[in-house]
Amino acid sequence: MLPEATLDQARQVLATLDARGESLATAESCTGGLIAAALTAIAGSSSVVMAGFVTYSNTAKVAMVGVQEATLAAHGAVSDPVARQMAEGALARAGVDVALSCTGVAGPGGGSADKPVGLVFIARARRGAPTIVERHVFPGDRAAVRAATVAAALRLAVD
Amino acid sequence: MLPEATLDQARQVLATLDARGESLATAESCTGGLIAAALTAIAGSSSVVMAGFVTYSNTAKVAMVGVQEATLAAHGAVSDPVARQMAEGALARAGVDVALSCTGVAGPGGGSADKPVGLVFIARARRGAPTIVERHVFPGDRAAVRAATVAAALRLAVD
Repeated sequence: MLPEATLDQARQVLATLDARGESLATAESCTGGLIAAALTAIAGSSSVVMAGFVTYSNTAKVAMVGVQEATLAAHGAVSDPVARQMAEGALARAGVDVALSCTGVAGPGGGSADKPVGLVFIARARRGAPTIVERHVFPGDRAAVRAATVAAALRLAVD
Repeated sequence: MLPEATLDQARQVLATLDARGESLATAESCTGGLIAAALTAIAGSSSVVMAGFVTYSNTAKVAMVGVQEATLAAHGAVSDPVARQMAEGALARAGVDVALSCTGVAGPGGGSADKPVGLVFIARARRGAPTIVERHVFPGDRAAVRAATVAAALRLAVD
């Protein structure tokens, strides 16, 4: 159901986190569960993956991972501070060691001059460390943007 | 990233729910986000899909969708009543019209005489209607069991 390269990457992330004794959660918007799905495709992932929040609507972002209404109003859902709040909210609410988040314009609709199709913010929150947020503009169609987001998030997980 | 047959099925679910003006959420254990990922692979899914709960650990099942500790203790995570509580919890917490859930033994480990690999409970909760729970024993490996679960859940969404 998922490409072998993605599964290989997921295997490496799980092995690294497992060796560190760390647990993981996700908070996904544009990928809609695909990061969690890639990780849980691997047998034994339950020792690392605890929970995932698919916060597709703005309401879900606020209710499920504590994104601030004011941040959504000021910056929009596809923004650095929303990605940061999603990751930090998932970390706190799931009680894990590492949380990954993403929010972006997967397309084909929804793009603008400011926020083109392919724009994705990916964040990693980690207990006791500063949160990292990456900004990407990925080429290709909806499936390509989502696949590139999964790959970048999995890289960031163990970076 | 996902097979065309799954995407076709997701398209039909979204079209049906959209025509009815209904919103959807998911609560996934053994599929780990793959049902939500399949639905959100389709452009325009944000008019129907609001949220997804990937409740991989028992702690997440309790905290995120309100599964009762006593039910987990009495029946185990892979059981009819847990699938039911996951769907009904997702319906209530996401404030949607329809919620899908699943909990199962995707394998290759974790099976027992009572609960073999491939055993999956899938539930659909719907505002103002009785919740439906299906019991399946799917053949094949982990990927096959997860793919069959996604297909059965999408069928149940609009049944």
